[in-house]
Amino acid sequence: MNGADVLCDVLLANDVKVCFANPGTSEMHFVAALDRKPEMRCVLGLFEGVVTGAADGYARMTDHPAATLLHTGPGLANGLANMHNARRARSPMINIVGDHASYHLPLDAPLTSDIEGLAAPMSSFVRRIEGAADVQPATEAAFRASLTPPGVTTLILPADAAWGDATPVSPGKVVLSPLSIDRDAVRAVAAAIRAAPGRVGMIVREKAARADALEIAGQISTACDVRLFSEVLIARMQRGRGRVAPTRIPYPVDAATAMLRDIDVLVLVGGKEPVAFFAYPGKPGRLVRDDCQVLTLAAHGQDLYAALDALRDELGIMPSQRTVFASAFPDEPTPSGRLTEEAIALSVARKLPADAIVCDEAVTSARRFFALSAFAAPHDYMMGTGGSIGGGIPLATGAAIACPGRKVINLEADGSGMYTVQGLWTQARENLDVVTIVFSNRTYAILHGEMRNVGVNAIGENARRMLDLDNPALDWVALAKGMGVEAARADTCERFDALLDAALSRPGPFLIEAVI
Amino acid sequence: MNGADVLCDVLLANDVKVCFANPGTSEMHFVAALDRKPEMRCVLGLFEGVVTGAADGYARMTDHPAATLLHTGPGLANGLANMHNARRARSPMINIVGDHASYHLPLDAPLTSDIEGLAAPMSSFVRRIEGAADVQPATEAAFRASLTPPGVTTLILPADAAWGDATPVSPGKVVLSPLSIDRDAVRAVAAAIRAAPGRVGMIVREKAARADALEIAGQISTACDVRLFSEVLIARMQRGRGRVAPTRIPYPVDAATAMLRDIDVLVLVGGKEPVAFFAYPGKPGRLVRDDCQVLTLAAHGQDLYAALDALRDELGIMPSQRTVFASAFPDEPTPSGRLTEEAIALSVARKLPADAIVCDEAVTSARRFFALSAFAAPHDYMMGTGGSIGGGIPLATGAAIACPGRKVINLEADGSGMYTVQGLWTQARENLDVVTIVFSNRTYAILHGEMRNVGVNAIGENARRMLDLDNPALDWVALAKGMGVEAARADTCERFDALLDAALSRPGPFLIEAVI
Repeated sequence: MNGADVLCDVLLANDVKVCFANPGTSEMHFVAALDRKPEMRCVLGLFEGVVTGAADGYARMTDHPAATLLHTGPGLANGLANMHNARRARSPMINIVGDHASYHLPLDAPLTSDIEGLAAPMSSFVRRIEGAADVQPATEAAFRASLTPPGVTTLILPADAAWGDATPVSPGKVVLSPLSIDRDAVRAVAAAIRAAPGRVGMIVREKAARADALEIAGQISTACDVRLFSEVLIARMQRGRGRVAPTRIPYPVDAATAMLRDIDVLVLVGGKEPVAFFAYPGKPGRLVRDDCQVLTLAAHGQDLYAALDALRDELGIMPSQRTVFASAFPDEPTPSGRLTEEAIALSVARKLPADAIVCDEAVTSARRFFALSAFAAPHDYMMGTGGSIGGGIPLATGAAIACPGRKVINLEADGSGMYTVQGLWTQARENLDVVTIVFSNRTYAILHGEMRNVGVNAIGENARRMLDLDNPALDWVALAKGMGVEAARADTCERFDALLDAALSRPGPFLIEAVI
Repeated sequence: MNGADVLCDVLLANDVKVCFANPGTSEMHFVAALDRKPEMRCVLGLFEGVVTGAADGYARMTDHPAATLLHTGPGLANGLANMHNARRARSPMINIVGDHASYHLPLDAPLTSDIEGLAAPMSSFVRRIEGAADVQPATEAAFRASLTPPGVTTLILPADAAWGDATPVSPGKVVLSPLSIDRDAVRAVAAAIRAAPGRVGMIVREKAARADALEIAGQISTACDVRLFSEVLIARMQRGRGRVAPTRIPYPVDAATAMLRDIDVLVLVGGKEPVAFFAYPGKPGRLVRDDCQVLTLAAHGQDLYAALDALRDELGIMPSQRTVFASAFPDEPTPSGRLTEEAIALSVARKLPADAIVCDEAVTSARRFFALSAFAAPHDYMMGTGGSIGGGIPLATGAAIACPGRKVINLEADGSGMYTVQGLWTQARENLDVVTIVFSNRTYAILHGEMRNVGVNAIGENARRMLDLDNPALDWVALAKGMGVEAARADTCERFDALLDAALSRPGPFLIEAVI
């Protein structure tokens, strides 16, 4: 038994049973060990951004880490952008980065690099395994770190630690500390809510954005006139008919500050105070008023559900108390003719199957969908959370692996989708139930808006060459076909509806290029 | 005039006139400034690995840096793997990474990350611009650092430094220190060569691998029985009929140590002592004998051509002295029938147009090409140099932009090609003369070999799922079409030859999927 076997055993003992992978030579002993563990599901990504993004999607849907297998510093580097998104989503993840044998490092062979340095900015925990005997304690520490509080962890596995002899062990489950709540914070928030009726806002995220916690938040909102918000970028929220629907804080700074202008007290449940996504000359960075009191009911890593439950108690609200819901779709005719972003949003919201998972990386193109989704069938909704594009296709891939039997709908921008387009192949390989809808507007539309935000209204040749994806237009049907995913194109509402019906009624991946 | 304008002016004053880019919101003022500079050629990549890899290819062919434009930490992260290849190639490069306005950073907005931390492992110079007034000195320092000695530099441009008012300047050319040689080293090497005839090896790289320097190295080799070598991974070498052809040190450790067994003195010209690419249990890391004397004639950053010239003088060799060349293709019939790697190598070597540029990322599939290329038409040859796959398509893209009028042939593995497949779109957008030949063997073939190297001969389901690219097979013709590049498939020698003839006879990009 070698170190690589021990690593697999510790992972499996802790229910880490999916490994998203793109291995290289220094990981061959680990690959051989995985080969001896048929209970570990190994999922190949043809690029590491797919690997880490899929692990993020998996973690968001299971609240449990997947492992990733990455090849030395450059392999890790390729996965960093989606590790960034994952760390902003607070997703548990265990990245296993193979490195040269420890004695080979001083030779500075071509693939040598500072792996710790690369990992640190996107990881909450980094540890280099110090030989085969260190594999078990290091892996257990990484597992614990991935969950308390949830976060991205990186474990560096030198080849000689993988191939070195290790004493056989029977690793047990790592015991995690129970989550706590802060009773003083609960009392302080309750007092603030009582003192400022109608002027308190509450931002929910992480497990406070699940249906059961939202139900409590909704009761508090209804009983005490507290306004519920979500952050701009949502790691995961349970949405749909019969569920409490927080208002999303808008991305544009002016709209966000306007929405929060009347808030005297902002209560955070699992998150941080919202700030402007970017700085703009002359605009504020904080979105609440400077004199707004910001209180934390419970922080990331605490028991968010229990904190909301305790707050409901403290406010004297009965668990049976009614919550007021918005309840019906806007009364609109079915769109027809030329396809638009709005028509797609309405169509998807209306046709969404119960218990679907929506991965929204449509950037500018799906703004309407989120509002409509409050009236759709109950579903899970998630976005890229770190602002790094290229999260959508991998997130959908990982979510589908986490939740077989549930339909995954990936609302994808064309610019973002190209970043990790290789993920379509993994969807085909694993025959995942993912319907990808590419909003093909052939531009980085958000950047055209941002150019206007910085005062440039007429753009020239150089800017156009950097902001537009035309000339040539991407052919998403061909790209999908190239990776084994069935696909078709729609430029009318009728055709889009027909394709969406077909895609939803059959298993396996399908891509719709929605030309808008 | 703002900081972004100054940055452009300093670049242009120093003949940095191509900017490979994938911008984001924090770079909008820089994009606007580039828009005011039509003399700067802005080339969009749909993923940052394309951007940095193309800058590497451009630098290798021009010995001058291009700029890149990357969006905050995650955008930089996506470009790191090809920065790693570039730093191993010692390519000059100026990466401009946009960041939040300096006063926005403490708010930890979603895209905030430790950019310095991410950049440092893959950069020889990192500097954060401290306001608009610092733009000129910082950019000049980055330009200087990119060339003395050549290397990858990273300049962080906070949004407020870009948009802040700057005094108009007329930047001049940065004055670079002249390159030196070490006369003592020249004498020591000459003495060693005289003392051990037939037992001295010399490794040439960088400018010592250009035709003029190779000519001198060849004279020394012929006159003094010195064996000429190149490293396993070649950043750039001028090859072909009438040029001196060093022997490439093989990748497998056993073959490499066998080749170097008789070498008592190894002379380095621009490089480091060669080492095993990876460590294997029981095999050495150094490739020369432990008692081999390793001498540096000239190091990276010194004048390699002048050092060779001085060595020739010191050895009393006349510049007119004859060099012995191998001179003819092996006498082989034109292959026919089922397409093989060997047939492709022979066909490409025979049909190579004069002055072509070959970017070889075919990994296992093009081993024969290098040997044959000594007899091909004169050309430039380059590989990914850091062992990070995904360099080939971008390198070819950048080389084609650097050298309009020269045909670029990209020998590309299917596994590696998928890493930065988005580069095909840039080739279409810019109508570049790149012929991409994808060796479609539908596997990470090198890893199958490496599994055998670690003693695993029968692989199971999990390993197969991580090493093979089949099920579904990638359809490269569809992928290329999806990005606007004309393409066709060959699985016979006859069909391949016909496609290659067609591709070489027409301008613009073309992709051949060579099914082997």
